[in-house]
Amino acid sequence: MARIVMKFGGTSVADLDRIRNVASRVKREVDAGHEVAVVVSAMSGVTNQLVKWCTELSPLHDAREYDTVVATGEQVTTGLLAIALQTLGVDARSWQGWQVPIRTDGAHGKARVEEIEGERLVERMGQGQVPVIAGFQGIGPRERITTLGRGGSDLSAVAVAAAVRADRCDIYTDVDGIYTTDPRIVPRARKLAAVAYEEMLELASVGAKVLQTRSVELAMKQKVRVQVLSSFEDKPGSLVVDEDEIVEQPLVTGVAYSRDEAKVTLRQVPDKPGIAATVFGPLADANVNVDMIVQNLGSDGTTDMTFTVGKADLPRAREVLEKARGAIGFADVLADPEVTKISIVGIGMRSHAGVAATMFKTLAEKGINIQVISTSEIKTSVLVGAEYTELAVRALHTAYGLDAPA
Amino acid sequence: MARIVMKFGGTSVADLDRIRNVASRVKREVDAGHEVAVVVSAMSGVTNQLVKWCTELSPLHDAREYDTVVATGEQVTTGLLAIALQTLGVDARSWQGWQVPIRTDGAHGKARVEEIEGERLVERMGQGQVPVIAGFQGIGPRERITTLGRGGSDLSAVAVAAAVRADRCDIYTDVDGIYTTDPRIVPRARKLAAVAYEEMLELASVGAKVLQTRSVELAMKQKVRVQVLSSFEDKPGSLVVDEDEIVEQPLVTGVAYSRDEAKVTLRQVPDKPGIAATVFGPLADANVNVDMIVQNLGSDGTTDMTFTVGKADLPRAREVLEKARGAIGFADVLADPEVTKISIVGIGMRSHAGVAATMFKTLAEKGINIQVISTSEIKTSVLVGAEYTELAVRALHTAYGLDAPA
Repeated sequence: MARIVMKFGGTSVADLDRIRNVASRVKREVDAGHEVAVVVSAMSGVTNQLVKWCTELSPLHDAREYDTVVATGEQVTTGLLAIALQTLGVDARSWQGWQVPIRTDGAHGKARVEEIEGERLVERMGQGQVPVIAGFQGIGPRERITTLGRGGSDLSAVAVAAAVRADRCDIYTDVDGIYTTDPRIVPRARKLAAVAYEEMLELASVGAKVLQTRSVELAMKQKVRVQVLSSFEDKPGSLVVDEDEIVEQPLVTGVAYSRDEAKVTLRQVPDKPGIAATVFGPLADANVNVDMIVQNLGSDGTTDMTFTVGKADLPRAREVLEKARGAIGFADVLADPEVTKISIVGIGMRSHAGVAATMFKTLAEKGINIQVISTSEIKTSVLVGAEYTELAVRALHTAYGLDAPA
Repeated sequence: MARIVMKFGGTSVADLDRIRNVASRVKREVDAGHEVAVVVSAMSGVTNQLVKWCTELSPLHDAREYDTVVATGEQVTTGLLAIALQTLGVDARSWQGWQVPIRTDGAHGKARVEEIEGERLVERMGQGQVPVIAGFQGIGPRERITTLGRGGSDLSAVAVAAAVRADRCDIYTDVDGIYTTDPRIVPRARKLAAVAYEEMLELASVGAKVLQTRSVELAMKQKVRVQVLSSFEDKPGSLVVDEDEIVEQPLVTGVAYSRDEAKVTLRQVPDKPGIAATVFGPLADANVNVDMIVQNLGSDGTTDMTFTVGKADLPRAREVLEKARGAIGFADVLADPEVTKISIVGIGMRSHAGVAATMFKTLAEKGINIQVISTSEIKTSVLVGAEYTELAVRALHTAYGLDAPA
């Protein structure tokens, strides 16, 4: 017997047939003797309609009223799923954020969960009842409805799982797990049986959009074991767990890529102390996030500084730099949006040397020029020309032995 | 300065344009210096969709989950109207049933309002804020969402008006007031400036579907002055108030009709003590509501009993009577659904004799046979053949001087 939180997203509850399908899945876990709580999103499309109404009435609408309106989407799903479960003979009842309660701060539209009182839920689960909990919503300090922001239902599920001390939080979605890389690029990508929290964070932030970063962070902090699996197929998914749980740790778990960055180079910057602050201070003030940074010392007492910013931030970054040209004293600014960041991720890299060397050698053999390199404890990233994306990802996937048997 | 509760039904808030229109109306009252609270229904069509989903999942759905689902319709409207009001510079906030709170009993799907805590609303109104309150919903004894049943938003509005001690409860609807009779039958029907609660009860129960009977009863009990008016036109409506407020009291206020009844005659019932109980007991047990009753003594020691039942109940009534034939001992049962009940209503009838005589004389002059008569303190009803409906209503409307000037 295990205690499980099952979370179903908008596409999984898009219509009555899919809600019935979800009910059957839940019943199966109940029949297997598990204690189950369910967290649901709004039926897909509903939230968009509600948001549109608010925005059409006023682009600068009161966030508290916005929350009141959009939280209804999840409320509808909880009631319908409870009815569908009862129809199958499963004892179930709906819970809104204010009923549990799921206490959040007062940041309407992007609230943070502060506390969930799990005891009543645990009690009901112990009696064989399935709590069907509205994801995405909570109740703020002034007893008003709050929402956690887009994708917040994953966060709700992980937080509920922590509150009821669940053995596992199953996130049902439209992909069937976490892959070693993007299967659209590498058909022989393999589904991972297990990924460590920290690996998932690196994979998510570089492009694998399966689980929200905030949810993974919360799961890691609260030690919630998460499983990502398909709501449409009946196959085991991928576990996101503490690294101690992962018995066979490969050196590299996955290859990720991101086309969302642009490269900026400042030419002939005077090489003097404090120059980095002069460059990156104004960018930070303008909310431009800088990722990879490299500096090449020239022979003439100047240096070339290269770094990446989000593609969407590029115009703002150029504007900020041009304004600061006098203070920085660079000769020229070059921008190149035609780049891709490619990363290898794996907690095995911590304890093994030479992992990155394989990456550089592999790319060199394919004639791919590395423009910038950055590393962290469990990740090595390189910036390459955008046209090499697929070639580089495939070569690295093979080099690290990640290809599925043919 | 007055304190006003304004209630808008589903057609008045059917889309964003209409919600903006409602916001303008509310602003006008605020600008006139009044303290205003608003009660809203769901956008028209929304409740039907939500009900349909529940019913499709299970015809015998859990009423608590049904309430959770359908109450979202009103919640959406409160948030949207609050935003629309704020856009016009009017301070406003939404209130759900559980936030006010509007406490009800636990009869999900048809709950009764037990208590509304009005003080917080009064305080906000005093500060110039407009509370936008979800109609139709409340919170039950076990902290679950309840609904008051169809048309419950009128009831919410009257109950809120009582709780905040409002000077008036304005019910905005798609008719512009209460008429002396159905204007589709009598083009010269007049809009009434004022109607007494008890008259409204009689008019509502015999066919004028403007205000729910339960709402009028509550308004009468709590002495809430109600105004019925159009949300689309800018004209004064009709007041429903205590009879003491009505200065010029006509003998007859209105002529109502109902095509919803059927006539049943039991022929040759033995004329003995207790026979009425033998007939009407089994009907009551079967939940068949009997309205008008008349008994004609025959010369042979038997009697013919004639009464009316709801048209929808007719098959059940016949079945019950046939089963009880032995006990009652009648010779024959005749049923006639082709009848209409026509009523004249007016509190002036209490203190004036001869009002009903005018009715009988008028109908006789038109050659209309009266099949059954029933009277109450402020109402006289007759049953006539359905084909005489329009003729009878028009003749009575003229006879009691109700026609508008040509």
